[in-house]
Amino acid sequence: MTQAIMSRKHPAVPPDGLDAPDLRRIAESAAADSGLLSLGGVHDWFEERRKAIRMDVRRIPFAELQRWGFHPVTGNLAHDSGRFFTVEGLRARSEGPDPVSWSQPIMHQPEVGFLGILVKEFDGVLHCLMQAKAEPGNAEGLQLSPTVQATRSNYTGVHEGSAVRYLEYFTDPGKGRPLVDVLQSEHGSWFFRKRNRNLVVEAVGDVPEHEDYRWLTLGQVRRLLGVPDLVNMDTRTVLACLPVAPPDGSLEGVTTDGSRGAAVAALTASLSAQAPAAHTLPELLRWFNGLRARSEVAAQLVPLTSVDGWVRDTDEIRHTSGRHFAIVAVSVEAGNREVKGWTQPLLSPRGTGVVAFLAKRIDGVLHVLARAHPEPGYVDLIELAPTVQCVPDDHAHLPPEQRPRFLDQVLAARPEQILYDAVQSEEGGRFYRALSRYLVVETDEDPVVPDDYRWMTVAQLVALLQHSNYCNIQARSLIACLQSVW
Amino acid sequence: MTQAIMSRKHPAVPPDGLDAPDLRRIAESAAADSGLLSLGGVHDWFEERRKAIRMDVRRIPFAELQRWGFHPVTGNLAHDSGRFFTVEGLRARSEGPDPVSWSQPIMHQPEVGFLGILVKEFDGVLHCLMQAKAEPGNAEGLQLSPTVQATRSNYTGVHEGSAVRYLEYFTDPGKGRPLVDVLQSEHGSWFFRKRNRNLVVEAVGDVPEHEDYRWLTLGQVRRLLGVPDLVNMDTRTVLACLPVAPPDGSLEGVTTDGSRGAAVAALTASLSAQAPAAHTLPELLRWFNGLRARSEVAAQLVPLTSVDGWVRDTDEIRHTSGRHFAIVAVSVEAGNREVKGWTQPLLSPRGTGVVAFLAKRIDGVLHVLARAHPEPGYVDLIELAPTVQCVPDDHAHLPPEQRPRFLDQVLAARPEQILYDAVQSEEGGRFYRALSRYLVVETDEDPVVPDDYRWMTVAQLVALLQHSNYCNIQARSLIACLQSVW
Repeated sequence: MTQAIMSRKHPAVPPDGLDAPDLRRIAESAAADSGLLSLGGVHDWFEERRKAIRMDVRRIPFAELQRWGFHPVTGNLAHDSGRFFTVEGLRARSEGPDPVSWSQPIMHQPEVGFLGILVKEFDGVLHCLMQAKAEPGNAEGLQLSPTVQATRSNYTGVHEGSAVRYLEYFTDPGKGRPLVDVLQSEHGSWFFRKRNRNLVVEAVGDVPEHEDYRWLTLGQVRRLLGVPDLVNMDTRTVLACLPVAPPDGSLEGVTTDGSRGAAVAALTASLSAQAPAAHTLPELLRWFNGLRARSEVAAQLVPLTSVDGWVRDTDEIRHTSGRHFAIVAVSVEAGNREVKGWTQPLLSPRGTGVVAFLAKRIDGVLHVLARAHPEPGYVDLIELAPTVQCVPDDHAHLPPEQRPRFLDQVLAARPEQILYDAVQSEEGGRFYRALSRYLVVETDEDPVVPDDYRWMTVAQLVALLQHSNYCNIQARSLIACLQSVW
Repeated sequence: MTQAIMSRKHPAVPPDGLDAPDLRRIAESAAADSGLLSLGGVHDWFEERRKAIRMDVRRIPFAELQRWGFHPVTGNLAHDSGRFFTVEGLRARSEGPDPVSWSQPIMHQPEVGFLGILVKEFDGVLHCLMQAKAEPGNAEGLQLSPTVQATRSNYTGVHEGSAVRYLEYFTDPGKGRPLVDVLQSEHGSWFFRKRNRNLVVEAVGDVPEHEDYRWLTLGQVRRLLGVPDLVNMDTRTVLACLPVAPPDGSLEGVTTDGSRGAAVAALTASLSAQAPAAHTLPELLRWFNGLRARSEVAAQLVPLTSVDGWVRDTDEIRHTSGRHFAIVAVSVEAGNREVKGWTQPLLSPRGTGVVAFLAKRIDGVLHVLARAHPEPGYVDLIELAPTVQCVPDDHAHLPPEQRPRFLDQVLAARPEQILYDAVQSEEGGRFYRALSRYLVVETDEDPVVPDDYRWMTVAQLVALLQHSNYCNIQARSLIACLQSVW
């Protein structure tokens, strides 16, 4: 059954908790270049940091891990301080008409981390303090990262590192004014109930400079989101939470006669809270809560030794099929980190993922096809995910009708259908070379919409992700990436 | 340290997901009497139903429970169908500077129930279809209940009852248009992660009549909230989710010279999304997420036999101190229920509770003092609670400085400080005579505000409770009750 498209006359979403002047300042920053540093200057700075920030990472056998070890009974992999994270087992069971149960390794990190971007006006334009930061799992070393990216283990000094730079702007109410503050999930298939506090804070007073940090406008960061594997996952999730309504006049220079121009105009409309939407927000919540209420997924941590179908050898913990992911270990030598060298486990996905929104213009407004997707690691059962989210290699052995829905359609897109297409990576502090092709593909067909999918405007997704437990990390990444199109 | 009162010029909250015409219709209904049935007629109908709806409830020993039994190993109390709910054990541990750990019995009901009010326009005014319904735990038998109040065990026929009346308006999108749809928590100290779907749906087409149901305006229900123990908990939580902004002209007849009149005017202002607030919503979310991020409460179900300090005798499971609550059993004979007679366990609190908001006018707008309160049964660790939420008898043995904060201040209120004061009950299908005195007490002092409390407008609380995991059941009850004042 396809769903009915109802009530187009309602505004898609209300304005969010920010007042009009803040919304205007954010929109202006998103449309602006910086007077401090051109985009060319950003590139020069980044290349200079790339030379200065050395991080040598090599895979090691588990036996060479220092301070990390497998528990003799549970088999769980943990640090001897009890902090950072552990690798444990997860047993999940979904009930209902089509019950499924499985077990798998999962990362467990109960502490909530900070992902914070500090902003400040220069020449009347908001700028973001962005960091050039290396993480051991990164494919290309350095990435453009938030001002602060810290777990409690970092900032309480568990790993004997130096203090986290600029953290005080996020912890001391007198030093900053919050624009965004929301707890967001991480990968629900790789992490058990992991969350980060996503923050945008406007600095009060002067902010000291540092060679690893530069002030960029939102517009500059937005354009860098078009570059493959440059803007890290943490930056993407924080930016997705910052409501960017297009400023008046943003359509200047956009032609609406070509299909690309019209698509960009439709995206601009989709970012507006006042745009007409296929469904009102109460209608979408009814659908979402209905699925959440019917969901009976039970997931619990179990000893890693008790998971079925996974084996541990000297170098990795892997699925006997060779699919899904592996737990591996690395040794890290770093030049400018809190700690000069360390070893740690990382989760290494098998193959490059595909993360894609199918998009469609409805009454001139771009809608994306969101999926209400259960993952065992979510705090609240189900979150909104992209249309497609998978590692195609995991499904290569299956006949077409059993492959993930919409995957083939997305991969077969003609160039003129593609609004966004770049490889991006997941968090390099926990995931080893976890790359996915992020795509937004416009369709002019009217595909059958399964019951767990709905067409939504970008503004509706942004309104929901002002609160916890609505939008998964992949959807938030794509929402940030979409802004590079506009 | 008291907190700073900042940024009064910001609007408190944005308008919610409902559009202006719906908000106006809700406000008009909240100000209206019904053309269908006067409030006197409602009383007559209710008294007539009270005579017709017979429910005899008597306490029984556990041995007389039918189809309920204690598991031989875990000691958990369960129904032989595996549905309804179980009584299990809970072990909770909070870390941090002042670690606490304890265990207790807790009710576990993983299925999500429906609490739904059907609304429809008559003579251009929205009316709510309210039900006269008896529950075994009710002190006074009948209560004014939502149109639908059903667990999945009800509506999938597990207890062999008849179909749930009017349920199709909430499950079939073609039969109703959603105004409210949100998953809300129940008592986090009595239930493990129990949630209900709170729904307000506008009926499409004619709705058949039934003698146990009557159409009332929001204004009529609002006035009945001033009557002790008449409007049930489920009605209160659903009504709290329905955003009532006072209509233009609602201040007619309200004098502002007396202190009561001024307080009511301040409450009216507090219900408006545009009212200036002590803190902006982003500031409040920063505070709330900061507490949630720092919270390290771990709670898990354990066998009931393993809880410490609780004993089971023939009639009840109770704490050795005689405080907190007991698990008891009842036998029920009913006249008009899906099932004519049954036995079941209930949770019986010791003593009458106190649930109170301390309120204060700030720049002419009534603010209530909300507390960010961890309870082990919440899905997401912490929710906003009233200023005071306790059973005073549980603390009678303690010296004053160890009694719950603000309790003595609330109980010592002079009559002219009291905006609302009525005994209300918790859900009678699960709790046996669980009565609390619900209070809203205005202070003209400027009390020291501890770090886990904040002054908020009612509109800010209402904006947050459009989403899950923000406001606990006691706070939602009080928000509904407050509307009887206005």
